[in-house]
Formats: sequence, structure tokens, C-alpha cells
Amino acid sequence: MRKLKLFTGSVNNELAEKISMRLGVPLSPLEIKRFKDTETYVKIKEKVRGEDVFIIQSTSPPVNENLMELLIILDAMKRSSAGRINVVIPYYGYGRQDRKATAREPITAKLVANLITAAGADRVVTVDLHTDQIQGFFDIPVDHFVAYPLFADYFKDKKIKNIVAVAPDTGFAKKTRRFAKLMEIPMAIIDKRRPAHNRAEVCFVIGDVKNKTAILIDDIIDTGGTISAAADALIQKGADKVYICATHAVLSGDAVKKLEVCKAKEIILTDTIPLASNKVLKKMKIISVASLMAQVIERIHSNESLGKLFYWEALV
Amino acid sequence: MRKLKLFTGSVNNELAEKISMRLGVPLSPLEIKRFKDTETYVKIKEKVRGEDVFIIQSTSPPVNENLMELLIILDAMKRSSAGRINVVIPYYGYGRQDRKATAREPITAKLVANLITAAGADRVVTVDLHTDQIQGFFDIPVDHFVAYPLFADYFKDKKIKNIVAVAPDTGFAKKTRRFAKLMEIPMAIIDKRRPAHNRAEVCFVIGDVKNKTAILIDDIIDTGGTISAAADALIQKGADKVYICATHAVLSGDAVKKLEVCKAKEIILTDTIPLASNKVLKKMKIISVASLMAQVIERIHSNESLGKLFYWEALV
Amino acid sequence: MRKLKLFTGSVNNELAEKISMRLGVPLSPLEIKRFKDTETYVKIKEKVRGEDVFIIQSTSPPVNENLMELLIILDAMKRSSAGRINVVIPYYGYGRQDRKATAREPITAKLVANLITAAGADRVVTVDLHTDQIQGFFDIPVDHFVAYPLFADYFKDKKIKNIVAVAPDTGFAKKTRRFAKLMEIPMAIIDKRRPAHNRAEVCFVIGDVKNKTAILIDDIIDTGGTISAAADALIQKGADKVYICATHAVLSGDAVKKLEVCKAKEIILTDTIPLASNKVLKKMKIISVASLMAQVIERIHSNESLGKLFYWEALV
Amino acid sequence: MRKLKLFTGSVNNELAEKISMRLGVPLSPLEIKRFKDTETYVKIKEKVRGEDVFIIQSTSPPVNENLMELLIILDAMKRSSAGRINVVIPYYGYGRQDRKATAREPITAKLVANLITAAGADRVVTVDLHTDQIQGFFDIPVDHFVAYPLFADYFKDKKIKNIVAVAPDTGFAKKTRRFAKLMEIPMAIIDKRRPAHNRAEVCFVIGDVKNKTAILIDDIIDTGGTISAAADALIQKGADKVYICATHAVLSGDAVKKLEVCKAKEIILTDTIPLASNKVLKKMKIISVASLMAQVIERIHSNESLGKLFYWEALV
Amino acid sequence: MRKLKLFTGSVNNELAEKISMRLGVPLSPLEIKRFKDTETYVKIKEKVRGEDVFIIQSTSPPVNENLMELLIILDAMKRSSAGRINVVIPYYGYGRQDRKATAREPITAKLVANLITAAGADRVVTVDLHTDQIQGFFDIPVDHFVAYPLFADYFKDKKIKNIVAVAPDTGFAKKTRRFAKLMEIPMAIIDKRRPAHNRAEVCFVIGDVKNKTAILIDDIIDTGGTISAAADALIQKGADKVYICATHAVLSGDAVKKLEVCKAKEIILTDTIPLASNKVLKKMKIISVASLMAQVIERIHSNESLGKLFYWEALV
Amino acid sequence: MRKLKLFTGSVNNELAEKISMRLGVPLSPLEIKRFKDTETYVKIKEKVRGEDVFIIQSTSPPVNENLMELLIILDAMKRSSAGRINVVIPYYGYGRQDRKATAREPITAKLVANLITAAGADRVVTVDLHTDQIQGFFDIPVDHFVAYPLFADYFKDKKIKNIVAVAPDTGFAKKTRRFAKLMEIPMAIIDKRRPAHNRAEVCFVIGDVKNKTAILIDDIIDTGGTISAAADALIQKGADKVYICATHAVLSGDAVKKLEVCKAKEIILTDTIPLASNKVLKKMKIISVASLMAQVIERIHSNESLGKLFYWEALV
Repeated sequence: MRKLKLFTGSVNNELAEKISMRLGVPLSPLEIKRFKDTETYVKIKEKVRGEDVFIIQSTSPPVNENLMELLIILDAMKRSSAGRINVVIPYYGYGRQDRKATAREPITAKLVANLITAAGADRVVTVDLHTDQIQGFFDIPVDHFVAYPLFADYFKDKKIKNIVAVAPDTGFAKKTRRFAKLMEIPMAIIDKRRPAHNRAEVCFVIGDVKNKTAILIDDIIDTGGTISAAADALIQKGADKVYICATHAVLSGDAVKKLEVCKAKEIILTDTIPLASNKVLKKMKIISVASLMAQVIERIHSNESLGKLFYWEALV
Repeated sequence: MRKLKLFTGSVNNELAEKISMRLGVPLSPLEIKRFKDTETYVKIKEKVRGEDVFIIQSTSPPVNENLMELLIILDAMKRSSAGRINVVIPYYGYGRQDRKATAREPITAKLVANLITAAGADRVVTVDLHTDQIQGFFDIPVDHFVAYPLFADYFKDKKIKNIVAVAPDTGFAKKTRRFAKLMEIPMAIIDKRRPAHNRAEVCFVIGDVKNKTAILIDDIIDTGGTISAAADALIQKGADKVYICATHAVLSGDAVKKLEVCKAKEIILTDTIPLASNKVLKKMKIISVASLMAQVIERIHSNESLGKLFYWEALV
Repeated sequence: MRKLKLFTGSVNNELAEKISMRLGVPLSPLEIKRFKDTETYVKIKEKVRGEDVFIIQSTSPPVNENLMELLIILDAMKRSSAGRINVVIPYYGYGRQDRKATAREPITAKLVANLITAAGADRVVTVDLHTDQIQGFFDIPVDHFVAYPLFADYFKDKKIKNIVAVAPDTGFAKKTRRFAKLMEIPMAIIDKRRPAHNRAEVCFVIGDVKNKTAILIDDIIDTGGTISAAADALIQKGADKVYICATHAVLSGDAVKKLEVCKAKEIILTDTIPLASNKVLKKMKIISVASLMAQVIERIHSNESLGKLFYWEALV
Repeated sequence: MRKLKLFTGSVNNELAEKISMRLGVPLSPLEIKRFKDTETYVKIKEKVRGEDVFIIQSTSPPVNENLMELLIILDAMKRSSAGRINVVIPYYGYGRQDRKATAREPITAKLVANLITAAGADRVVTVDLHTDQIQGFFDIPVDHFVAYPLFADYFKDKKIKNIVAVAPDTGFAKKTRRFAKLMEIPMAIIDKRRPAHNRAEVCFVIGDVKNKTAILIDDIIDTGGTISAAADALIQKGADKVYICATHAVLSGDAVKKLEVCKAKEIILTDTIPLASNKVLKKMKIISVASLMAQVIERIHSNESLGKLFYWEALV
Repeated sequence: MRKLKLFTGSVNNELAEKISMRLGVPLSPLEIKRFKDTETYVKIKEKVRGEDVFIIQSTSPPVNENLMELLIILDAMKRSSAGRINVVIPYYGYGRQDRKATAREPITAKLVANLITAAGADRVVTVDLHTDQIQGFFDIPVDHFVAYPLFADYFKDKKIKNIVAVAPDTGFAKKTRRFAKLMEIPMAIIDKRRPAHNRAEVCFVIGDVKNKTAILIDDIIDTGGTISAAADALIQKGADKVYICATHAVLSGDAVKKLEVCKAKEIILTDTIPLASNKVLKKMKIISVASLMAQVIERIHSNESLGKLFYWEALV
Repeated sequence: MRKLKLFTGSVNNELAEKISMRLGVPLSPLEIKRFKDTETYVKIKEKVRGEDVFIIQSTSPPVNENLMELLIILDAMKRSSAGRINVVIPYYGYGRQDRKATAREPITAKLVANLITAAGADRVVTVDLHTDQIQGFFDIPVDHFVAYPLFADYFKDKKIKNIVAVAPDTGFAKKTRRFAKLMEIPMAIIDKRRPAHNRAEVCFVIGDVKNKTAILIDDIIDTGGTISAAADALIQKGADKVYICATHAVLSGDAVKKLEVCKAKEIILTDTIPLASNKVLKKMKIISVASLMAQVIERIHSNESLGKLFYWEALV
């Protein structure tokens, strides 16, 4: 019978170690190097012929490097006769380029799906795609997990009263609603708009947040501008306290600085993207997806149902 | 040089006639019949060899019949050596099955995209996909148009004051915001939820609608339940008047009845789906997409840019 | 090891039950519904991850509904990581559209093969394709069975003497010959033609049928016109008695009525298409393919040879 | 605009010359050689970049050599950026292996279709496929012509009375009927069977041939056994005279000898396969398909309809 | 579990027998015949459903016959539901047509790779491809072995001193170097060139061969011209003795004669191509690849690493 | 008729400008930016619908960035309905990973070919692929040019006597020979090897270089180690002067330093990769490929033969 073999690209070493420990399956060795001319070289250092291979790699920044590394690993796996090639992508980069918003743009999230398939993947496991529809960019099976039930558990433990879930923009309204429903709390939405020509953008809060604890929820914190402005606007509109939850800690540019100065009391993130030590703030809290990923991998390997891991679905 | 040849499946005869007149290009004959055993038979009654063919067909109810008819037309076109096969799908059915919402579901909107491509389409033109991401379900070019600028023009002519755009649920919040921004009006959202176990669902209105004219906006009116409940809830929350805008008039079940009795003053629809005469209400207003589609077809045929037709994009 | 999981679409419930009983494998639950807007919704209600799945679905009338349902089930299976997806199509609809008979026609039987493959099938099992060549429309394995040995067994039990096999038209001459050879009886052919302009079509009988028991054999009875006229013509030409055998009981329009009044003594059909109760005639006899299908499924599942089930081949 | 460029592989030189003359388009030079190690080498000796290329090559014996030569020409054309690659295959070899007749056989006619497509063909033009369904083995357009109207013209000129069309076996009954209908004559069929165990096969004639002129019609004469036995059987059953018509003169083994000694008065063939001088008999008559092929090529090149060339279709 | 089933096409009977004996797995029966019209017919005479099939077939002369035979076997295997289809191609014909050397040529080695994949192969095992890059013409796994370590073992046993490895042309310089490195001996290269216009080509020897034992090494001996001229040139330049090593004994035209009269003392070949009895010279020595192939097949079947068989790689 | 539209990615701005000037076709605008999170964003700023698009982009360091940028441009072009998408890749990165040299490696040069094709390219134009066989990694047309005739012209103008062409290793022997033949000069080869265990590698010169002007020729100078050691070894073996020619100036690490201190008199490079100002040495000479590329683009656009640009082929 096929053995489970666990590999990690160069992005998620720490997460992969955790998953490996939970699974009781050691990480198999993979030689990855960048030649002086910047070309990526990969060599699989252990037999994969016929095995059930799982490769963990977020396509987080530097996204092009990390994506190409993943594609090259896939090519090596395919040509080495791996039995089944499963790709675990905790953070799926380019997810926001998922449609043509204006004329003559690419749909890079679809391009990436095509590249991953062309390179040889048999299945994708991922967390909090920017839009659910990206699942349909693939014709291979995609097992897609969301992190908000982990955030909900975290807040239930805190036993805070009088909470409101807040979407930082209309694009995240639907997912915020799912979180609100799971928590059985009301919701509000922020609409950032220019009140008139030649005026700066202002955060309008749609819905009631006064004297409440607001939980801002998003999939990605990138430059941190939107979410920190949202947090401050909520306090200004009378919210008592603001928490920020986000699955993917991209944190580019001076995001950390903005998060530090904003009025949010706590920022809850996951480890789909490893956090560089210089990006850690005291008010950050990291929830690991390792346990979830380990269960998923184990069940996929032994052909058990993943359905039970989707308990929040009844609420959708 | 390739000639433009215009065909219609059996769904959009009236719309196709309008497009044909605007283009000054007659509809080419297509024999379509259902045999007694329900099989669809298609025969192209005019030369298409080498021509630039446009086929107009909404995959509206009965969706499986209409979709299969389209696929069979495509197969006939491909085998008859049509030069380029463009499919104009004013209403793209199955658009709401665009992701796995729970375990072991299909993603039928992607399946349909694959079927259309496999049958031989070279390009798709469509209006108001249920989610923009469906563009990325295709690897052939998709020219995607939205109808809300047509609605905006309609309301600008009315010169109503003190308006608010309202999303009937969180899933349509983002598109409602685009409409609101184009109209330079505020927005609100309806969140239909069960206040407690064993209690009926209630429409919560997030945002301020009191003494305002509310414009509810959605892509599809299917059974009409959500939108008519939303209209009534807005009146109850103090809105002066309610208008309903929706691109695709699916109107299944007793939708027309619900729309009739609901408190909306006017219902603005388009002709992406033909409206049966027994479904017409006095308070309905139909805006035709014929002019837009005719321009699109003409520009595609003569390889001109479609960019100018996307004037609303700057606002996205 | 992979488990055998048996599913049925909404067409062949009774046949599927029989197969399930013979296999000792229960039918796995599949939620199939039509929404009010006519869209088909499918949800697999049991784990299929890694399993050896068999889906039973004839693409009988209403063919477009039943075919789309099958394609959607396939998409759901593929995205749910079924181990191997076997499709059992007792009656393959659109089989008669298997070539371009005139200019600018589709080859819908090939289109359907492409759609089934694109949707995710790994193998097809089917009975009495309209032409054997449809096997070659697929690049996945097709296990194709014929029903005439079942008919032959039936007639051997009757121990009738002086029989002739009759093809209702030249298109079925080759298959009739196989049946005749297996039965070791002579054959005749009917050639329906217009004797002169402005004259009605007449059935010419090529070959000797006088004072014989004629067995008319065909793959499909659709509107019943050809076969019932053939039966009457045989009696007129002096045949003693006429039996009609046909694998697929499409029976559209007033076929049942025609069969009732025609001079055939008995009509032998199979259950590849379920017979509505209002279509049952006293002179009909249904031979079930359940036992054959159960054996086929069992052997495919356990990777045994199907060769032994093809005993009639030596005669081809 | 694209130019028409005409090429021939090494099979149909004479036919290609005739087509070239009728078209007024010279044959473009193609270097084709077999190296000493039997490898085929091809070099296109004239620019094809962007041109509308037609390649004439029957896959007649030696079929593997001729097919591989065609595939290599196609690869060269594709890599040389030919604008559109049309393959004219007057005789499509392996056409009789068009289904699995017994277990564990290939469907070589489909394999060949896949190989031709994989090598780069954009379209296929062919004559009298062994079964019409082979059209559906392709997903590229196939323009398929039949030769029997040419035979019909030939016989109409002879003004013979009291004719019967005869199918040499049941497999050709359907096509014989088309010929019979076009000629407005009756038909008969030959059924070659073993009357009892340990007895030699005998040709049973189904239908009436006595005192008539019989026209045996088939697509291929291969070893000539079936058709010459059929001719003799017809004379024995009282036919006055026998003509043999067949499109493809494969004539393998001692076919010519059998044809010579058989009782057929005349044998009418076409030039889809060139006839070696040592295979010519006095009683053979060759009808050229050059004119038909030239018209087809011209119309395809100039994107005109081929429909008018299919005048016999109304009769099907 | 899948069983290993071993088949051979009609080329490598003797080698296949040896492999079969070493594996302790009998050759499974395969009916292969050429019909009189030169068409190849294949029938698999034993169950392959679900099995792990290995097919041994060099595409040696007559290359088109042997390649088509292989493709037809593959099609039969695929349609018979073989579990995994492994192709062992000891000699990969058309390997020298691996690039466009001049304008408007095919890349036949790539075409062949596409044909093998299209016909249904899941994996290729091969020996001494003309260029290593042909591996990359496939997207299925290729396990590629080289024969020069076998030659090195042979010469190590001979314990000859003062040896030099010689490439017969610059194209084989790189592989000669690998051999030289493995043997720890120096190397030289032959550059055949025309010293001036209107002068015959002359073999220039680059490097020092005087008073040495020269080992000429090449992948293929085809017409034998280059290698026998090279052997003679080496003697002329003062080499003591010359050995010729080549993996693939194509030996076309009068190659054997040239080899016989040339000054090489011994010619070492392998059995990737069977040597006809009339091609055997006394000074030929055949080293079998059977043992290597048997190990490879066994390890592939049981999903063991092939890495250990690549011991020479460290030297590359 | 299609217009020629010229675009450049962010690599070859200067070369693209030169090509644009020679063609008299302005560079069309392309917005390319890297977001803060490192994602690449592309927007085509000019209509491409139906046009004949040429995109110039070397996949030079940073190779992953530049390759992904190219793929994203291709996706945008495809979805914007460009008429034909031609990619001009003056330097094809990852070319050296063109085979599995040891077990469980990728063939990244093939992966890259697949990615470029999957992203939407219709044709590739490139210069001096690391191995010619990479042409066969594509199934779309590849127009491949070599730079050594440009080097030959350069040296012919210098009118140096007594020259020898030297391959820096055996892998480049074949291409060095072509250069030598074009120049009508002899050749030598360098074989870098370890004379004994624990000894440093030494450059052995195979062939005669004493008192000659040596021209070292290679496709790529990467870290510069091999070529500068080769230059010094040639001087040590008595060469008078050494020139270095190489097409692609990758120049990674301290390559420039090594080149500066080595004993080569002059280093001739091309502009397939732009040379950063801090990498320019006095003894470097840059020959532009702009004129060649401009001719190629013009001829491809107007469907003229490229054959005449391949004048050196006769020598191969």
C-alpha cells in the first residue's frame, strides 16, 4: 500500500514540522537551492515512486519565487513516478486577481490554477481562498477549509458579551455574515467612500456598533491600510473595543506599523504564512492551522471522509 | 473576409430579432426540433464555413433543455467548419452553483463552462454572471457585461432625491456598493436571520433607510421570496418607497404573485430572459440589453476594442 | 482496498435495485432534486473518497434532463475524490445521431461521449449501442454488451420450428444476421420504399418468410411505426406468426397503441429503460438485464475478465 | 490572404497531378525519403508559413509506412507554421477496425484518428469511410464523400434494364440500399454461411436476382474472396450478368486473379488507391475522384459551401 | 494487488524471453498478425484488466511497422482496462530527428513521443536515447538507462593499459567523456571534415591516440560508415588497437561489411535490437541488457527506487 | 488585416526599443507593476483584439520573476482576444535543466515550455537554446536562431590568421564544430578533470592550440568560472591570444571579476540579456541581435519564409 510522504517547500517549515509531529510522519528530505543565476534547483532525496505525496507550500511573498518552486517540485514528483501528488497550499497567492475587473487584465488566480495542474498536481488542499469560486478554477479535487470557526472558538472562550461582527468592506460581507451566524451575533459593514470630489475617503459604518465589542474579520491583511482605518473608525463610532481577525498575515510594506498604532486591542492571525520575527507585535495572537491540516492529510491519505471537518457548513 | 452570421437558439427569439435589426444583419436560419423521444435535432440551414458566427442562447429554464440545445448547435457549427464560434449567453444558468458550499457537491457552473468549451465555443459573451469569478471558469475569452449602469441611467432620469441602494443579502453587498457608488448614494444591507431557535426568519436591515427611497438590487429574481420580503421589510423600517432592480427575470414558481403583492412600487428587469405574457405585471419595466449586445457583437466581429463599453469600470 | 459503491440517477431505480440485490451491495444515497427554476441539484450523501463508484443512468427520455443529471453527478463524484468513476448507461440516448447524414448536422452521439468524458467518467458500461462504432467515440474503456443472446435464449426455450429472423430495415441487417447465426436460422430484410412518386411507402420483404415464424429484431422501438408496419407486412407476405424483439423500449408518441394493434403476437423488450405502467401491454414480455449488469459490475470491480460474458462473440 | 498549397505524400502521385491540373495549382515540392535504416525523412521544400495547405495521402498498403509518412508530414507542417492543415485521405486505412468485435481488441480506426489529430491536422477530407461513424472519431471537421453516385451515373449512361443492386454481405446492406434508391431499383443481399457443421460456407442470396443484371457494390475489394464468390453465386442463382463496383481497390494477395476468373462482366473501381500496372484487368474500369476532390479543395479553400456537392443526401 | 504481466511485440522476442526468465514471470500471449493488405491486427490473449502491464518493443527497423504495432498494442491495452501501461523501448527509433536542423523539418522524435502518449502509455523505460533531452519530449515518467557502464565493466575485466576513449564525432563528445571519466582514462575526438573544396572528407583526430588502445564509443551503428572510417583513422594516427562500442546495432545497408573490413579488433554491441544471424561477425561481442531491464521492471512493479541502478550518475 | 503590435516585458527594454525602431512599429504600452506583497500586476493599455502580438521577454535573472511576468502577460493577452500571440524569448532561462541528470530531478526546461503553452502562447522565437532539442519540448512552432554566425562575421572582419575554435567543455563540442566549420578553422576541446583523487580539477586541452589565436565559444557565461579557467589554460598551453564568445551574458556572482582577471583579450557577447552598467568591462564587445529579431518578426507577421535567415544551415 501507498505510504504517506510529507514534503515541504521552503516557505512553511515551522508549520510543516508541526503537521509532521501531529501525524507522526517525518518530513521527507527535499533539496531546494537557488543557483547564483537565481534558477531554482530541486532534487527529491528520498524514494517517492508509487507513494502518496503531500507537499506543503504557501504561495506567499515572494510569490513568484515560491510558486515557481512549487511547480518545479511538482514536475520532479511527476517524473519520479509519485503515486499521487497532493498539494497543501495554506495561503493561495494571487487569489485577489480572480476576475477581470477592467478591460485587458489577466485572471492570474486562474492562470495559477492551470499552472499547478499542468505541473502535475492531483489534488489541492487550501485554506480561506479569497473567493470560494477559486475552487472551480480547478478540475482536480480541491479540499477547501475556512479559518473562521477557529476564530469563533477563540472568542467563545473569551465569553465577551455584546459583540458585533464587522466586515471591513462589502466584499467580505458574506463571509462576515457566516461568522456572525456561527457566533449568533449581529453584523455591520464598513463602506469606505469619498464623500465628495476632492475629499479624502471616509469609513462609513453601516449598522450599529455603539458600545459594542467589534470583531473585524478579513481573509488577508496585506498593507494593513483598510483594516486599521476600519478599526479606528469603529472606535470613533462608539465601539468599546475592536478585535481584528484575519487568516493570512501577508503584512507587506509598513503593515505592522499601521497595525501597531491602530486602536485594535488584539489581532488574531493564523500561521498559513510564517511570521517573520520582526513582524511580531505584542497584541498579535497566532492560531495554528497545523492540527486541522494534519487531520485533513491523514483522512485524505486513508480515504476517509473530510465531511466531519466541515461542521460549520450547516450554517452557511 | 469573414462574414458576421447571427443565429439564435430557441430561447431568445425576440431579443435576437432586436439585435439583428440594430446590426442590420438578418438572423440566419437554424432548424431546431425535438423528436418525439425528446432528443434535440439541429441543422444549420445556411453556409457557415469560415464565417464569424454568433449564437444567442440564454440557458434559462428549462435550463437542461436549453443548455443541451446550445451544445448541439456548437457541435454542428464546429463540424461545419465555422470560422469562429462566439456564444452570446445573456443569462448564464447554473451560475449559483459556483462553489462547493458543503461536502460532495458539484460545481455545476464550472461543469457548464467545461461543456461549452468542449462542444466548440471560441468565445463567450454574457451579462451579469452570478459571480464575476465565473469568467475564470473559462480558458477561452469571456466578455462580461453588467446591467447596473442601465438601471442607474433609468433612475437618473427619474431625478428622485434621498435614495439608498439596498442589497437583499450580504452576497450582493459588493455589487450593490458599485451601483451605490455610480449613483453617489448611500447603501444598506438586509440580513435575513432567525432571531432564536423555533422562530421564523426575520429581515434585519443594516444601515439607514428611514424616509428614503430604497432601490433593492439583485442579479436574479428566482422564486421572488427573498426580494419581496426585503421590499416589505424596508417599508416596515420606514422607507418611503421601494424599487426592485434585477437583471435576470427567472421568475419561477409563484414569483410573479409574490412580486405583485409585495410593497415595491416598481420592478425593473431586463430581457436577458424572455418574459412570458402571463408573467407580466403592470409595475414591471423591461430594459432591453439588445443595444448593448449589438454593439458588443459588432465590435467583436470587426476586432474593435470593447473597452469603451466598460465606462463604469473606473468606479469599481 | 477500494469498496464498490453503487449509485443510481433518477431513471433506473427498479433496475438498480435488482442489480443491488444481486450484488449484495446496497444502493448508496444520492440527493437529486430539481429546483423551481428547473436547475438540477445533486449531493452525494455518503463518502466516496477513494472508492470504486458505479453510477447507473440511462439517457432515456427526457434525454436532456437525464443526461445533464448524469453529468452533474459525475462532476460531484470527481470533485469528491471518488477513486474510480464507472458509468453504467443501459440505454445510450442520441445514439442514432452518430454521423453527419446531411451537411451541417452535429454528431450528437460523439458530443455526448465528449461530455461524459469531460465531466469525469473513467469507464462506460452500456448495452446495445445503436452502432458498435460508438465505442470508438470514447477514449476511455467501454464495456459493451448486446441483448440478442438473451432473446435467443428466450426463443430456444420456446422450441419453435421453422423460424426466420427479420431485419426491419437494412441498417439492422448485420445485427439480425448475428442473431440468425446464433439461432441457426435463415434471415430476411425489409426494405421500406416508395414504389413510385406520389405513392405511399411500402414494405418490401427481401427473402423468404412464407409459412414461417418471423422474429423481427431491432435495438430501439421509438415511435413504433416501422416495426409495427413490418410486422403487418410479414403477415401479409404469408408469415405464420410474428414476434418483435427490441432492447430499448423508448416507446414515444403513440407507439404503444401501434404495437397493440399490429399483428405481432408477442413483443419482447428489456428493462434498460423502465416501462411506465400505462405503457404495458399484455403481449409484452420484459427480460431483465440486471443479472448481466450485476455480473459485469462485480467483475470490473474485482478486476476479473469480462471475456467470459461475451460467449456469443465466436459467432460474429 | 492565404494561398492554397497542394502537397502529395508518396502514395497518390497520379491522382494528385490530376487534382493539381483541375485546380490550376501546381503541386508544391516535398522531399520524402526512407533512410537506409527505414526511417522516413520529410522536408518541405517551399514556404508554407501562413498558407492553406492540402496534403493528399491515402493510407493504403503498405499502410503503416504511408500513415507514418503522413504523420511526419503533418508534424513538419505544424512546426513550419502552416496556416491551416487540411488532409485529403482518399482511402482511410484501418477503417474496418472500427469497433471491438471481441474482447481485448484495439479500435485502430479511432487510434488513427487520434494520431492524425495529435500530429497537427485541422481538417480531414475523405471518401467512403468503411462506416460513416468514423467521422465521429474526429473532433476536427471531416468532409466525407461517397462514390456511389459516381457509380450510379456510370450505370445510368449504360441504360441497362431490369437491374438489382446486391450487397455482398449484411454489413453493406444499408449502403447498397442508398445506391438502389438512387438508381430506383430493387436490392438483394448475400448471406455467406455454413449450412451445417463440417460443411463449407455457402452464399445464400436473399432477394430476387433471377434474369436480372446484378450490380454488386462494396466499399473495399481486399483479397477479393467475398466479392468474387458473390458474383459467381449470383450467376448460379440465375442472374443474367454481374457488375462489381467498389471504391477502394486494395487488391491484396491474389485478389486480381480471383477477380479475373470470377463471372463478373465488369469491375468498376476508383483511383483513391493507385492501381499497379500488374493489377490491371481488361474488365476493370477506373472512375477518377479527381474532379470531385478538386472541387472540394477549391470550395474549402475559398470557404464556399460543400453542401451542393452532397446532392444525393436527399435520398438517404 | 496488481499482477505484473509481461508482453512483447514482434521485435524483441529473444530479449523478452531472457527478461521473462530472470523475472520468473512468463510472457503473456499476444496475437499479432499482418493482414494481407498490410494492416496490423492485435489481440491480447489474456486478461489485463487492472494489471501492471509491461510491453517490450524496440522501434528498430522496419521502424514504421514496429512503431505502429506498438501503438496498436497500446490502444488495445487501454481499451481492455489495463491497470498501468509501461512501455519498455530498448531502442527508441527516430531519436536522431530530435530537432529542426534546417527549415521546415519535422521533429519526429517528439512526434513519436506524442503518439506513444496519445495511444495510452503511462510510462516509458528506455536505453541510451540518442540525446538525453528526449526524456523531456514526454510528460509521462521516463526511466532512462545508459549502456556505457556495461561497456566499462567489460573493459575493466580485460585489464588493458594505456587506453583512450574516442568520440566518433563532436556530437558524442559529452557521452564519451562520461565513459572516459568512469574508466579514468583520457579522451579524444574525431572531426570529419573536408580539408578544402573538391576534396574528400578526412577524419581529423583531436587529442592524443598514439601507441594507445582506442575505444570508440557511440550510441548507434547505422550504416557503419562513420565508425569504421574512424577506426581506420585511429590506426593510421598510430593507435595500437581499436575497439568499437555501440549500444544499438541498427546495421543497415552494408554496415556489416564495412565493420568486417575495418581495422577494429572487436565490436561490442548490446541486444536492444536483435541481430539477424547473417549480421553476426566473429569480432562482435553482444552484451545483454536483459538483466538490467529485468531489475528495472521488477522495481517499477513493486514501487522500489530505481536510484540504486544509476550508480554511474555521481560521475556525470 | 491583423496589425503587428509589439510589447516588451520588463527585461529587454533597450533591445525592444531597437527592434521597434528597425521595424518602424512603436512599442505598445503595457502596465506592469509589483504590488507591495510582491504579486505582479499586468494591464494591457492598448487594444489587442484580433491583432498579431509580439511580446519580447528574456527569462533571465531574476528568472522566476521574469517568467511569471511573461506568463501573466500571456494570460492577459489570451483573455483580451489577441489574434495571435508570439513570444520572443531572446534568452530562454532554465535551459540547462533539460534532462534528468540524476534520479528524482525535474526537467525544468520542459516544465517552462508547458507553462508558456498553457498560458496561451501560439509561437516562440528564441536564440541559442542551451540544447537544440528544447525546440521539441514545444508542440507550438518554435523559430530558433543561433548567434555564432554573428560571431563569425565579427572575426572575419578582424582577418586574424591561424585561429582555432575551442569548446570549453565536451557538451559544447558539437556547436563549436559548427562555428569552426563556418570559419574554416580547426577546433580543440577542453576537458576539465581531476587528475587523481584529492587533486584539484585541471583543464586538459584536447587538440592543438600552440601559437594560435584561440576563440572560446559558449552559449552562456554564468558564474564565469569555467570559461575564464579555460582561457587561462589555453594561454598556458601556448595559445597566443584568447577571445571569448558567448551569446547570453548571465554573469552571476563574481563572473565579471573572473572575466576581468582572466587572460582573454576580448569578450564578445550579445544583448539577449541587458548588461547592467556595473557589469561592463572594457574588453567586452556587445553584438546586438536586434536586427535579426526585427527581420524575424517582420517575416513572421507577413507570413514570409524565415528560411533565408538560416543561411548557415547548409553547413550543419
